[in-house]
Amino acid sequence: MKIEIAKNKRSDEADNGKNSVKNTDSELRQDIVTGDWVVIATGRAKRPEDFKNNDYSTHHLDGDTEHCYFCDPEKSGQKKDVLIYRRQDGDWTLRVFPNKYPAFSRGRVPRSLAEGPYFAMTGTGYHEVIVTRSHFHHLPDLKVVEIAEVFDAFQDRYLDLMKKKSVNYITIFHNYGKEAGASIAHPHSQLIAIPVISPYIRQELRGAELYYRSNKKCVYCEMSDYESEVGKRIVFENDKFIAFCPFSSRSAFEIWVMPKKHSPYFERITDDDKMALAEVFKKSLLAIKKTADNPPYNFYIHTSPCDGKDYPHYHWHIEILPHTSTWAGFELETGIEISMIQPEVAAESLRKNIENEN
Amino acid sequence: MKIEIAKNKRSDEADNGKNSVKNTDSELRQDIVTGDWVVIATGRAKRPEDFKNNDYSTHHLDGDTEHCYFCDPEKSGQKKDVLIYRRQDGDWTLRVFPNKYPAFSRGRVPRSLAEGPYFAMTGTGYHEVIVTRSHFHHLPDLKVVEIAEVFDAFQDRYLDLMKKKSVNYITIFHNYGKEAGASIAHPHSQLIAIPVISPYIRQELRGAELYYRSNKKCVYCEMSDYESEVGKRIVFENDKFIAFCPFSSRSAFEIWVMPKKHSPYFERITDDDKMALAEVFKKSLLAIKKTADNPPYNFYIHTSPCDGKDYPHYHWHIEILPHTSTWAGFELETGIEISMIQPEVAAESLRKNIENEN
Repeated sequence: MKIEIAKNKRSDEADNGKNSVKNTDSELRQDIVTGDWVVIATGRAKRPEDFKNNDYSTHHLDGDTEHCYFCDPEKSGQKKDVLIYRRQDGDWTLRVFPNKYPAFSRGRVPRSLAEGPYFAMTGTGYHEVIVTRSHFHHLPDLKVVEIAEVFDAFQDRYLDLMKKKSVNYITIFHNYGKEAGASIAHPHSQLIAIPVISPYIRQELRGAELYYRSNKKCVYCEMSDYESEVGKRIVFENDKFIAFCPFSSRSAFEIWVMPKKHSPYFERITDDDKMALAEVFKKSLLAIKKTADNPPYNFYIHTSPCDGKDYPHYHWHIEILPHTSTWAGFELETGIEISMIQPEVAAESLRKNIENEN
Repeated sequence: MKIEIAKNKRSDEADNGKNSVKNTDSELRQDIVTGDWVVIATGRAKRPEDFKNNDYSTHHLDGDTEHCYFCDPEKSGQKKDVLIYRRQDGDWTLRVFPNKYPAFSRGRVPRSLAEGPYFAMTGTGYHEVIVTRSHFHHLPDLKVVEIAEVFDAFQDRYLDLMKKKSVNYITIFHNYGKEAGASIAHPHSQLIAIPVISPYIRQELRGAELYYRSNKKCVYCEMSDYESEVGKRIVFENDKFIAFCPFSSRSAFEIWVMPKKHSPYFERITDDDKMALAEVFKKSLLAIKKTADNPPYNFYIHTSPCDGKDYPHYHWHIEILPHTSTWAGFELETGIEISMIQPEVAAESLRKNIENEN
């Protein structure tokens, strides 16, 4: 199957630095004990007074298309698309542009901001938004081919940004629902390209490497093979991708979507694979929506760094994490999440809802 | 200064297993890639149907004392106090009892629950609630001596539970506000004693060890000394404790409270130290409440494991983490938090609010 999508070439103008995106003074600060990173994004910054009269309660975002920045990006001053997909009639179906309030500042090489015993550097990177056309149709509501188009845009931007000198890791993620961090109701994903490798990815890379050394097998292939064999945690699978509730699920109805064939690099996905992935992905999101009553969720791609090294024992995948419970003191203190439903039970009811759909 | 508190001895009956707390079939499951743990707490479990009609929006808890489980624990069937502090007239001021919906099941030695390539074990441990008397007076509203009493209870329970065979780490934490995971409005802290060492603590232990080897100094002492010297991130300090916004703060107005003297083990805190800690702690919580408009928050104690080994290079401390922003896809994907205010700016306004208080 071939995905038919009309693309514009990325506009050069959008990337020459003369754009309207504020060059913020983001800082990447390192935890002196653990080596982990935080971003102090003063460009999106708040002054202390801004925390006065703060409403910390959260609620679902409304469906106001009139004032939506993403329904008509031109109207809201957005002229810096880095990618547009159009239909035959010229109308756009998907567009990618720089985030108006970027967590990272683009275009410069990181500069040390060390202070006393601490290490920090300028938060150099790229922060883009991937917007689909409809205000009301979220990812599970799109057609398989339209979801494949979203993955196509992810890949397209990835391939472009991985070439940048300052970029060593690219994270692609999606927040659905205000409780999951979405501040704009219109469906959109985000891409952040950063100079450091994220602590979680580092941990997975190390784990995968150690597992390979002991077992001469990719740990993700091991998982995917075992899940296929026992079946009880599978949500949906086709010949190329498998979706299952991980054995050590961190939240109820968590799903991982994984290529069955060993593959360290998301950006090397083929068009055929994108269609197969979109099918599994749509089924998974729909099943979560139906089973857990439309919960807020995040999903993100875990893939190898693009720092010029090889990661032959890593295996890219997508993690879908529904916000079905609040991570509180225990989780934040320990890093051990408490989930209230067995992944086997969760998978069974997700599967049932997929069957009922057909 | 001596803390005058009348204590009951821990009742033996409460610990003999004949209690009304459900012995859940909690499981500790290990992530095959990273070695991290999750708890599948089927005792607090939900069935898939329970996620139907779920309201994922959150809001502040109400002040209904009539139906509060913690205002009159006896009335709600709670007869298993493991610790009660009373005033001279016999009325209680603080009590500790087992959590009615424990995340861990008590009293047994962990048993392997391995499956295929995965490792898991029974979730053996202790889960207790530490309740102060007033429904409406939260920790920052209590007197310094009353806060010292809370730390005293933490220590008391710690010293008891660290002796249990199955316990290798004890986590003590507090959730304030529904967004921070508090499901009961009445002020309470929690203690969970578990057989495994939490991933975050492991990471800090390793970091502290490495720093010591390179610099012949405790990394937390280094931090505390440097913060004292430069002053800009300090929130409050007395001769024994220092409270500061960490250089790599994960959220706006995050505060760490640390003993100035090197000390790996929280449970060895003296009565004098508890009073000094309570003073710094109260100032810190009040400053957060005032500066950030009463945000939800978690705090927790990070201390050495109680697994029988020595941890001479660790340094116990308390981390107060206000929920001033939502951790979304980026944070969950990478483990890199985005904060929107510089810790130096946050500390300045926290200090101002402490000065105005006096």
